[in-house]
Amino acid sequence: MLKGIAASAGVNVAKAYKLEQPEVVIEKREGEPAAELQKFDDALAKTVKDIQGVKERAAKRLSDEELAVFDAHLMMAEDPEFASQIKAMIENDKVNAEYAADTVANQMVAMFEAMDNDYFRERAADIKDVTFRLKCNLLGLQIPDLTAIDEPAIIVAHDLTPSDTAQLNEFVKGFATAIGGKTSHSAIMANSLEIPAVVGTKGIMENVKTGDVIGLDAIDGFVYVNPDDVTVEMLNQKSAAFAEEKEALKMMVNAKSITTDGHEVELAGNIGGFKDVEGVLKNGGEGVGLFRTEFLYMDNDHFPTEEEQFEAYKAVLEGMGGRKVVVRTLDIGGDKKLSYYTFPEEMNPFLGYRAIRLCLKEQDIFRTQLRALCRASVYGKLCIMFPMIATIDEFRQAKGIFEDVKAELLAEGVAVADDIQVGMMVEIPAAAVLADEFSKYADFFSIGTNDLIQYSMAADRMSENVSYLYQPYNPSILRLVNMTIKGAHKNGKWVGMCGAMAGEPYAVPILLGLGLDEFSMSATQILKARKVVTGLSYADMQKLAEKCLNMDSAAEVLDYVQSEVKA
Amino acid sequence: MLKGIAASAGVNVAKAYKLEQPEVVIEKREGEPAAELQKFDDALAKTVKDIQGVKERAAKRLSDEELAVFDAHLMMAEDPEFASQIKAMIENDKVNAEYAADTVANQMVAMFEAMDNDYFRERAADIKDVTFRLKCNLLGLQIPDLTAIDEPAIIVAHDLTPSDTAQLNEFVKGFATAIGGKTSHSAIMANSLEIPAVVGTKGIMENVKTGDVIGLDAIDGFVYVNPDDVTVEMLNQKSAAFAEEKEALKMMVNAKSITTDGHEVELAGNIGGFKDVEGVLKNGGEGVGLFRTEFLYMDNDHFPTEEEQFEAYKAVLEGMGGRKVVVRTLDIGGDKKLSYYTFPEEMNPFLGYRAIRLCLKEQDIFRTQLRALCRASVYGKLCIMFPMIATIDEFRQAKGIFEDVKAELLAEGVAVADDIQVGMMVEIPAAAVLADEFSKYADFFSIGTNDLIQYSMAADRMSENVSYLYQPYNPSILRLVNMTIKGAHKNGKWVGMCGAMAGEPYAVPILLGLGLDEFSMSATQILKARKVVTGLSYADMQKLAEKCLNMDSAAEVLDYVQSEVKA
Repeated sequence: MLKGIAASAGVNVAKAYKLEQPEVVIEKREGEPAAELQKFDDALAKTVKDIQGVKERAAKRLSDEELAVFDAHLMMAEDPEFASQIKAMIENDKVNAEYAADTVANQMVAMFEAMDNDYFRERAADIKDVTFRLKCNLLGLQIPDLTAIDEPAIIVAHDLTPSDTAQLNEFVKGFATAIGGKTSHSAIMANSLEIPAVVGTKGIMENVKTGDVIGLDAIDGFVYVNPDDVTVEMLNQKSAAFAEEKEALKMMVNAKSITTDGHEVELAGNIGGFKDVEGVLKNGGEGVGLFRTEFLYMDNDHFPTEEEQFEAYKAVLEGMGGRKVVVRTLDIGGDKKLSYYTFPEEMNPFLGYRAIRLCLKEQDIFRTQLRALCRASVYGKLCIMFPMIATIDEFRQAKGIFEDVKAELLAEGVAVADDIQVGMMVEIPAAAVLADEFSKYADFFSIGTNDLIQYSMAADRMSENVSYLYQPYNPSILRLVNMTIKGAHKNGKWVGMCGAMAGEPYAVPILLGLGLDEFSMSATQILKARKVVTGLSYADMQKLAEKCLNMDSAAEVLDYVQSEVKA
Repeated sequence: MLKGIAASAGVNVAKAYKLEQPEVVIEKREGEPAAELQKFDDALAKTVKDIQGVKERAAKRLSDEELAVFDAHLMMAEDPEFASQIKAMIENDKVNAEYAADTVANQMVAMFEAMDNDYFRERAADIKDVTFRLKCNLLGLQIPDLTAIDEPAIIVAHDLTPSDTAQLNEFVKGFATAIGGKTSHSAIMANSLEIPAVVGTKGIMENVKTGDVIGLDAIDGFVYVNPDDVTVEMLNQKSAAFAEEKEALKMMVNAKSITTDGHEVELAGNIGGFKDVEGVLKNGGEGVGLFRTEFLYMDNDHFPTEEEQFEAYKAVLEGMGGRKVVVRTLDIGGDKKLSYYTFPEEMNPFLGYRAIRLCLKEQDIFRTQLRALCRASVYGKLCIMFPMIATIDEFRQAKGIFEDVKAELLAEGVAVADDIQVGMMVEIPAAAVLADEFSKYADFFSIGTNDLIQYSMAADRMSENVSYLYQPYNPSILRLVNMTIKGAHKNGKWVGMCGAMAGEPYAVPILLGLGLDEFSMSATQILKARKVVTGLSYADMQKLAEKCLNMDSAAEVLDYVQSEVKA
């Protein structure tokens, strides 16, 4: 029995499939440049094709958001700078292609890793992933094809790369890895795919071989190697209980999200595109609380045309069958860049030129999106919201452009729904503090907790030394949420939340008590949240929330909620 | 008569001193590496000495803060990377030293200027300033020595570099430049030195020669070349009226800062070190509201020892003769770096590892400073405050270390004052929002508006595209200030403000009305602020402030205050 970290709940017993990557040995040889260049071009083309293939297969199971990692890989593999550095080395130093590729990649990885920052470390991981594939192709080595697994198996590996997890099919009953933590990429993917996973399992590679029977307890974080009958029986019972609980949750798909004393709220899903609509409906989402349109832009080599956007929005609105869909207009900049648009170099991009700030300057981009949205509005129930609004002037200006575009379309004889709600994200402290004034102009608010917390604490949660300040339960954050809700209700407007906090079982009781109207989260969190809501009394949660607002620290709040509520 | 921008008020008539920099012509020649390297080393050494000389002469008139630009220049000139790139070019390309220096510097300047960002543009300006001096030294050209001016003169120049302004002596009766704006470096220095200045004066270089008589009207932004007698008489009258107003302000040096209805506040000065104490006292400062200790660290090649710090703090406390001195503990990081300490690379340094966050991890650095402060405390009235506090946990931890250090010193038999107040900066939105809880632990608050506005608006004011969001008068900012003040008063604590806003004539009435207890500003702003305070009714300002809190925009607030108050 080995101990690891339970990263995605579930229990299964199956045979081990031990993932062993080919050993890549790079030797430096003298090479004839013309031949090596040809070899390199061929291998690079195959690498691009391989990644596209993995992405296509993965697209069947993953959301647009989860697929974004492959775009990063493709961008890397197709980066002319990357290729030209390798080619220059082949030509100038007359070395073999794999040595040149390895050397150039190692330099880039070292550079990114030296920057003590999660963002750059992710870029380093991308380079490693792509270069590994490239080197295997140059050396004619076979990368194991996980999509070929065709009988129930639990994968055992040192680590799973994004490419690996994206290839997992329905025969994969779980995985156990030697490294990784609860927030590592493979853990997040496992949750999203609902595959049981134990990560950070020391000794797993040394103690398991393909064909061993693995008992995976990803509720408590244990991996049993060739378990005895008693253990298997215990695991089967645990698995059955887990399935039962899951089944019980499924019973709530069509239930209302209503408290024991009759206060009803709305539980919605966050999506990145049409492909995610099914997941929201299957999990009982009452609407879409956040449609992140940036994937339309990032997943592209040009600004999407009005027609391309219209089709995408129409598909989602129709797919949701008349349920409310809140579309966030382009939220680009910060750490989200486009391959076909140059952003200014900024010292602090999170405090810079992004989202609505960019859209108000680059009005052509903004108008195209608003035209597409207005045209799509007749196919469902559309709400539009603007990201990163800091001042009322900005909101009025953005709303003004929307009114212009709508009038322009009507003048052209194009139908536009007359009940489009126009609201805004509340993710900048200044907006939360002035919510009662903003709500005179905005039809609704959606609180973006990730950014709101970062700005309110003045701490980039990607920065290791200050990530301790990412504190959703800090009373200061709860007060900002409270000001936003009370400010909206003062003028009869509704408030949603679309940040990570909205789906956290211990945050839901507080948010409910503060009067939040709509909770939008990952589709897989919805049923669990509904179970929490339906078990609570609104009157009690109002008292609980009031107390939390006057506490000293996040720890005090969380302790208190955990003692009062069983989530 | 030429029109420019009045950048520093005052009126004077004097002869023109036209600053003409030597023309530097760089030719590419073949060079004997050993000889060129020697030439380069000599010129660089002379450049370093020249900058040190300018700094020393400037130190007589400038504050530590204003002198910091020379440290940037020295760091540049002594940067081994800069020198080694030039030397490599001399050796590899066998070219003359001035050509190599010019080429390397131009590349660096181009790189920094391409980054569309004020911070990097300043670095580009630093490189230009240093390289200009270096090239002159290589070519044996004389840079005009402004310190040699020994009769009344008005300097006329294309632009004044920081090195130039730092050299202005008492004979300089003003300057007029062809380029620059109200916030350019030369404008800021002119204000600080109280030298009349008109900047952005088109055509000035073409129309003026040394020896012309110049009438400088830096109240309305006019430059008269060889004015007739009537104009000179008009200018003399204007100058007399200005001097009279200045004199009237000086009468207020010992006046109380009290409203017409008897509400008293405290007007204090911001300082960077002992050298600024005289300016605060001369201008009627009732205390020091912000002593920025980072200059002790930045102006150094090692972490200042306990003894060095003790002497610096003692000098200021004694210099202020028993008046309150608020010392801010080390606020480093963000855009403030040290030559002898490596900060982690961060994507958003303003949201990163800085100030108290660093001090709580690097406790040796923090304890040394606190020991020095405790030891100095017996020489005056000391208040200590911690920068960048986001959570109550952080404040308690920092205060705990202070208590430890104090107990340790007492145990060693060292005297420590028993009335040291321990407070905190409120510059992070989360702290403002939770001020009523923080004030249970902190003895006082000091609001840092520059950072508070940046974080509340999620906008780096150094970033051109979003600098419009730096809005001190936005009602959201006023509300955060209000929450801070009311939160402190609830527990009987006092609140100061040490950001740029505290000295703005139209902000003072609002802040007064909100109940701010202490206003800390540049020494030269104090008397003007006192004039404003003594002319206002507290009861009226309370009503005025209340109205401002419920407005929509910064423009609406400013319009309203300007219509109600004559500042």
